[in-house]
Amino acid sequence: MTVPLSDADTADRTDSASAHATDTGTAAALLAALRRDLPDGTLGTGPEATGPYATDRSGSRPAGLPLAVVHATHTEHVQTALRHAHVLRVPVVPRGAGTGLSGGASAGADSVVLDLSRMNRVLELSPEEQIAVVEPGVITADLDRAAGEFGLRYAPDPASAAISTVGGNIATNAGGLRCAKYGVTRDAVLGLDALLADGTSIRTGRRTVKGVTGYDLTGLLTGSEGTLGVITAATVRLRPVPEETVTVAAYFATFAEGAEAVSALTAARIEPAMAELLDGPVLGAVDDAQGTDLRSRGGALLLLQCDGRGAAAEADAAVRQLRGRADSVEVTEDPAEADRLLAARRLALPSLERLGRPLIEDIAVPRNQLAAAVREIDAAADRHGVRIFTFAHAADGNLHPILVLDPALPAVPDAAWRAAGDIFTAALRLGGTLTGEHGVGTLKRRWLGDELGPDQHALQRRLKAAFDPHGILNPGKAL
Amino acid sequence: MTVPLSDADTADRTDSASAHATDTGTAAALLAALRRDLPDGTLGTGPEATGPYATDRSGSRPAGLPLAVVHATHTEHVQTALRHAHVLRVPVVPRGAGTGLSGGASAGADSVVLDLSRMNRVLELSPEEQIAVVEPGVITADLDRAAGEFGLRYAPDPASAAISTVGGNIATNAGGLRCAKYGVTRDAVLGLDALLADGTSIRTGRRTVKGVTGYDLTGLLTGSEGTLGVITAATVRLRPVPEETVTVAAYFATFAEGAEAVSALTAARIEPAMAELLDGPVLGAVDDAQGTDLRSRGGALLLLQCDGRGAAAEADAAVRQLRGRADSVEVTEDPAEADRLLAARRLALPSLERLGRPLIEDIAVPRNQLAAAVREIDAAADRHGVRIFTFAHAADGNLHPILVLDPALPAVPDAAWRAAGDIFTAALRLGGTLTGEHGVGTLKRRWLGDELGPDQHALQRRLKAAFDPHGILNPGKAL
Repeated sequence: MTVPLSDADTADRTDSASAHATDTGTAAALLAALRRDLPDGTLGTGPEATGPYATDRSGSRPAGLPLAVVHATHTEHVQTALRHAHVLRVPVVPRGAGTGLSGGASAGADSVVLDLSRMNRVLELSPEEQIAVVEPGVITADLDRAAGEFGLRYAPDPASAAISTVGGNIATNAGGLRCAKYGVTRDAVLGLDALLADGTSIRTGRRTVKGVTGYDLTGLLTGSEGTLGVITAATVRLRPVPEETVTVAAYFATFAEGAEAVSALTAARIEPAMAELLDGPVLGAVDDAQGTDLRSRGGALLLLQCDGRGAAAEADAAVRQLRGRADSVEVTEDPAEADRLLAARRLALPSLERLGRPLIEDIAVPRNQLAAAVREIDAAADRHGVRIFTFAHAADGNLHPILVLDPALPAVPDAAWRAAGDIFTAALRLGGTLTGEHGVGTLKRRWLGDELGPDQHALQRRLKAAFDPHGILNPGKAL
Repeated sequence: MTVPLSDADTADRTDSASAHATDTGTAAALLAALRRDLPDGTLGTGPEATGPYATDRSGSRPAGLPLAVVHATHTEHVQTALRHAHVLRVPVVPRGAGTGLSGGASAGADSVVLDLSRMNRVLELSPEEQIAVVEPGVITADLDRAAGEFGLRYAPDPASAAISTVGGNIATNAGGLRCAKYGVTRDAVLGLDALLADGTSIRTGRRTVKGVTGYDLTGLLTGSEGTLGVITAATVRLRPVPEETVTVAAYFATFAEGAEAVSALTAARIEPAMAELLDGPVLGAVDDAQGTDLRSRGGALLLLQCDGRGAAAEADAAVRQLRGRADSVEVTEDPAEADRLLAARRLALPSLERLGRPLIEDIAVPRNQLAAAVREIDAAADRHGVRIFTFAHAADGNLHPILVLDPALPAVPDAAWRAAGDIFTAALRLGGTLTGEHGVGTLKRRWLGDELGPDQHALQRRLKAAFDPHGILNPGKAL
């Protein structure tokens, strides 16, 4: 599902992928120090070892290959790598499972990758306190499953939960499908153990739900894309699995009508746990790939879940709003039937991958601007001759316009970048943001200043310097 | 309800209430510039004008009186004051309603108070987007009331909501009674307009529920107690008023048994919107003041609210857990009857004020450590011969031990400080924090390093310098 970007393309998109140019002597000194101080099996060097760590799921590939990969299994390994890299001023790229979509974990020549995926122990899980303490490499779905044994869950649910790590989710402040009701990753993180660029260890936050001692470094590290510190453990909040869940599927003539229906739910003060809205082209792609007939049923599909002890009453209220607006409405409390209804959403991306190479975008707009955003997306597609398929986490205004590109092309064509640029500009104009949940990485840095403004951008760089004065942590990303 | 601290006492508690010593010439230059550039009626000078702004509700009073008070009604006034103060290196103390309990808004000699209470307009309230944009001086309950006209509410509910401002709530990241279910102030703040120390204007965050562009400065400013920037507008999230609310009152023989009952609710995966636990001495104080007979009914009172469409079912589940543990359980869906049950909580502080001068503490511990925390509080009271009354936001482990002092004493006696110190130390030992929702201000700075550790403390000072290189914003507070 990745889109290979040529070196030239990447160079064009990132103004300084690395502020550093590690010379041969420095590289040799670093490798010697790491070989000396890390246990056997922890250090990987050479193209075979480092090649798989040069890019993430965005496919964005900087020039060259990393110097080395440190497969840390203990905090001490991370600290050793940071200390040496800091002294020698070598860029360090922290990495979870590499499932990011913005190039945040891509690693070019002269950098060292800190692979944290093997630090994957659940250190503690307390049903009494409703918290867990985990290493960064724990797969998000594994944490959720472990919590499930006690009737609890880890609420953040990025679509990548089965393959992404908690540490990676924290680095990007990952969203998901039920954020409007249950919050994003940041809302579930109570405290962090982190190493600063020079290997200094800090423990931010706490085990309690409330706490206001000092500045909120937990929140600041969350979403900082590995540029402020390296997370070595996280204390996260768990919440009860809802007692009941009711699933609703409704077809509409157009995406705009589906978006208006979601606005009507908001106006009726219904708080769905999930509200996924798929446009007609996505339904058509699923039909082509899966042999279904979704597109014939409408031009947009809204998949809704209400949960909690009041789920049935809330779903009833939702259905009252949807009737008259929707072409058809189905409701179920049966998990198997719910799975069947949700299949269209689950199969959307795999179906699009059969049509070409998807470039997954990620804007968010005020929730009453959903229909306007899709009009802008469609206009950008027409203007630049690009195929765009859109689905949205509609309850929180987060849209994923997916550009499907010709796989024969060696790089992302300029028309696609221009369409993406138009979409980001429209998102900002509508009062939104250029990334709702995937992060800036390398791919969106050229638009960052448009959202932050020059003064805030400068302030954020000063913050970065307060954490990482030599700029060794994931340079060229996020900011 | 304030405890006057003598100058000597304050000097002892704050290692450097101000890093600045404004000389006479500088003070004159600043006053001249402010007189020249601010509109009539905006500037207050002299003891009568500045005296009321020297302290907050903590009663902590630094030496001397502020140079001036700027009663800002527009952002430009704030910017003018900051620009001049920054050039002349004069400390600036931002202030909302002055209801803080930690000395965060106390202002001593040679400082300028920025009174933001007159910037109190609701600039926008969008039921479609479920957001409001407000100036910092809006009274929290007024915002909630304005939202209520659309069936919405501002979820954070500090006990001071009727008298405190949204800006002050944001500065302290205020908590409240329903945080375990609905989050603290930070969770409701989407974006901020803020001025940096030199008057530079930035706009952080966004209008959308999700967004991960750049570092989370919204979260960082929230809870920074006026030391990083001055908030001039806030975009906050509104949420639906719950469809139903059920109130439960249960008496227990001891506070420990009440705490165990709350743990049993947690284990049963019940998420109350409110769970207030009052100890026997508090019940006795209410009885003495109000002529009630609460204390005869038990040694602790738990007041519980479940809300939402599943409120009745959840309250039923709660009552099943409470029966057998509690001496008595009452349940009501009637608002008037609920008010009657909640009167004990509402009247707790006024009743304690009749017994002496309350010094309100504010620790938080992991929610299964509530009973242990109260044992530590009682032991500290015995050890130091101090009267302490405790109530707790039990669902999130936030306790308010209230030291009631002899009003005839000129300052907080050492025994009270030693008892408070023992309580803070116990909170940290139990995995908690020395302030759950009131902030560090001046009064808790001596214990701050114990919670943060030296490396994180140093990092937080570097962050402060990145925002405010000359340290003019609320020096001697929070950090």
